[in-house]
Amino acid sequence: MFREAISKLIAKTAVDTVSAHCDGPCGVYDPASARIAAEAALSMTQKIIDLGPAESADHNTYGRFVSIKEQQAHLAKEELLILWTDYFKPEHLEQYSDLHDKFWNAAKLCSAVKQGVDLDAANNLMAAIEDIHNIYWATKGRDVAYYVAT
Amino acid sequence: MFREAISKLIAKTAVDTVSAHCDGPCGVYDPASARIAAEAALSMTQKIIDLGPAESADHNTYGRFVSIKEQQAHLAKEELLILWTDYFKPEHLEQYSDLHDKFWNAAKLCSAVKQGVDLDAANNLMAAIEDIHNIYWATKGRDVAYYVAT
Amino acid sequence: MFREAISKLIAKTAVDTVSAHCDGPCGVYDPASARIAAEAALSMTQKIIDLGPAESADHNTYGRFVSIKEQQAHLAKEELLILWTDYFKPEHLEQYSDLHDKFWNAAKLCSAVKQGVDLDAANNLMAAIEDIHNIYWATKGRDVAYYVAT
Amino acid sequence: MFREAISKLIAKTAVDTVSAHCDGPCGVYDPASARIAAEAALSMTQKIIDLGPAESADHNTYGRFVSIKEQQAHLAKEELLILWTDYFKPEHLEQYSDLHDKFWNAAKLCSAVKQGVDLDAANNLMAAIEDIHNIYWATKGRDVAYYVAT
Amino acid sequence: MFREAISKLIAKTAVDTVSAHCDGPCGVYDPASARIAAEAALSMTQKIIDLGPAESADHNTYGRFVSIKEQQAHLAKEELLILWTDYFKPEHLEQYSDLHDKFWNAAKLCSAVKQGVDLDAANNLMAAIEDIHNIYWATKGRDVAYYVAT
Amino acid sequence: MFREAISKLIAKTAVDTVSAHCDGPCGVYDPASARIAAEAALSMTQKIIDLGPAESADHNTYGRFVSIKEQQAHLAKEELLILWTDYFKPEHLEQYSDLHDKFWNAAKLCSAVKQGVDLDAANNLMAAIEDIHNIYWATKGRDVAYYVAT
Repeated sequence: MFREAISKLIAKTAVDTVSAHCDGPCGVYDPASARIAAEAALSMTQKIIDLGPAESADHNTYGRFVSIKEQQAHLAKEELLILWTDYFKPEHLEQYSDLHDKFWNAAKLCSAVKQGVDLDAANNLMAAIEDIHNIYWATKGRDVAYYVAT
Repeated sequence: MFREAISKLIAKTAVDTVSAHCDGPCGVYDPASARIAAEAALSMTQKIIDLGPAESADHNTYGRFVSIKEQQAHLAKEELLILWTDYFKPEHLEQYSDLHDKFWNAAKLCSAVKQGVDLDAANNLMAAIEDIHNIYWATKGRDVAYYVAT
Repeated sequence: MFREAISKLIAKTAVDTVSAHCDGPCGVYDPASARIAAEAALSMTQKIIDLGPAESADHNTYGRFVSIKEQQAHLAKEELLILWTDYFKPEHLEQYSDLHDKFWNAAKLCSAVKQGVDLDAANNLMAAIEDIHNIYWATKGRDVAYYVAT
Repeated sequence: MFREAISKLIAKTAVDTVSAHCDGPCGVYDPASARIAAEAALSMTQKIIDLGPAESADHNTYGRFVSIKEQQAHLAKEELLILWTDYFKPEHLEQYSDLHDKFWNAAKLCSAVKQGVDLDAANNLMAAIEDIHNIYWATKGRDVAYYVAT
Repeated sequence: MFREAISKLIAKTAVDTVSAHCDGPCGVYDPASARIAAEAALSMTQKIIDLGPAESADHNTYGRFVSIKEQQAHLAKEELLILWTDYFKPEHLEQYSDLHDKFWNAAKLCSAVKQGVDLDAANNLMAAIEDIHNIYWATKGRDVAYYVAT
Repeated sequence: MFREAISKLIAKTAVDTVSAHCDGPCGVYDPASARIAAEAALSMTQKIIDLGPAESADHNTYGRFVSIKEQQAHLAKEELLILWTDYFKPEHLEQYSDLHDKFWNAAKLCSAVKQGVDLDAANNLMAAIEDIHNIYWATKGRDVAYYVAT
């Protein structure tokens, strides 16, 4: 009961704030930020695989590639969460009822890209970001072509 | 159709990854991290109000307090999102069907704390974190008392 | 004489390294990263102007906008310098003999965007990035359309 | 003689500043921040040991765990030093005459946790933080129970 | 009694670790890092004063200067604490019995430089760093002249 | 034609901004910042070599050393680029016509230090920084002796 009351209060403030924010000038968002980071994480995954068996690979190179993969997958997650928490608003949720799940799964794919040397996870993350790219630009009423840099 | 196929594929990988992760050793999570940052943001909000009218307040102090409020509210958001993306798993969602909304609203409250000098937003953020503290420890089957440092 | 010898030695190593790097797998670069940050800095410049006279503007909002402008202009500079130091190679310099000057001026425009609330500087930075976008994709032999997110 | 004069001058300013600060509103401090980071570093130490011999362990996982241990031990050090430099004041030093040594040793334990895969160092760091937790809350006149998240 | 036992245990591990570290190769330390950051904080303090009354100063410039002062004073503190926790060892403490106090006071001066627009604090911080410069190079048995960049 | 017009416009604004900046108070620059980071990267390169064959070296130590080398080489690059983009001005370029190349090569040497375990690259980076140290202090009309901390 108490918890319910808190939840309602929180939801109310959050929504009000968002509405107020909407009345002001709009921010600059572009899913390309997440896509570039995810591409880099995918590229590092492929490069680690290309090094062959880890024990015979150059250890300096192997260690650096794992570290860059980690950073870029983390950056992709951060960029995705900025879209989710800052850009998307209650009215978008009505239109895309699985929006929360899409972002939750995309964030978990970022973790999967970190945890393994896993091309499937990295490719699925790219697909998740393409999906979010399409939703984002649809909400803006603009037709921006998706592309990858590599 | 294509979008649906992508969504399913992504969801599948993410869930699989999560399950695999579950089989491994557990991480260290504690909602206290988010609570401490939110307390600091609340404290800075109160201190800015205590400075009185901005134009006659010490500008060095005023500027620093706004900047610290920004950083701490941002840190609270990051800590909350770590819990949401890394700790919570599909089985928790079955138990707490509004989990996504709770985190989304809490994240938006962090933004509200940044955007204004707004005691209501800061207090609601504290309440949101207490709520998440209770859920988190319930999923761990432990009874950890909530407290604030100030 | 000694200085000359040092310079030659350094130039030689750097070029060798770069060549070696060329033989390996290519990195992921996209001038869109710099463009998004510069757009955000331009947007913040406009929003600060829209606040009207600073002394009567909301001090929390004014301070935050200056701080976000600073961060985004800095990020734009970082992203530009990654292209200059990591992507571009001696052979590109033969083709674009003023490449160094272009990046130096673009970096100095990032500083100008920080130092003032200066729409001209912010717009010129956008133009400089569009110019670099065109050069970059020309060196890749691809035709990627330039666009802005806002 | 000159050095002595400098030292006195510095000590005087620092103490004055601190006293002035004391007259103002209090900050938010909680040794839980250091404890959570130290727990994570201890957990990573154990997980690295659980991987077995490094040469036959998965290199991506091994590298990530070392890196996370490094970051968390560093964060624990930062959080401890914030308490030492910002919270504790000359009057506390009168009460706890070995306060400087406690923090110096705790900081050096953070380094030890980084340098090796050393359960003793990690456990001793946890004990050092429990000790500081008790001192901190004693100076606040509050009885806050110590707990670990894992 | 229990607390005493913990303290001894911690002190022992920390000292052992440090000794072990001493057997290995030495790190690169130079108090110049702290001096450069403190010089920048002093310079920003002077520039803020030169702006005249805050309410009639350019708000973009004033805000940026306060923010740069904050960052540089923080960096000076970090650089000082690296020397204290990583470079200095128990044998140095025997020679400089007030070493802990010197660093504690220097760190508190960094905070004072942040909290105010205070030329005395900034100049005292510079003097504290010159003092540490002299101690540091004496322990290395080298005679390195102190200088300031501005 | 259009591109030329843009270039001229950009160059004009950048130069104007720089001149305006010159009228104001000067910043604090010291090539010692880049030198200290480069020394650390050189030291880590040597320590990695001293560990002997990577496969039989302690993996925790090896991984940490590669990571510290990466960070320090990156920091050296950042410090060099601050000098290039913020301190040096068009009038210096007239005096040192190869200034752009010097910084470009020095930045590429930082990358080479990251990419390999390469004593030549690390030593050449040190030589490049000594060269820049000499140019920098010559433009300031001061005679500051170059030294290394180790």
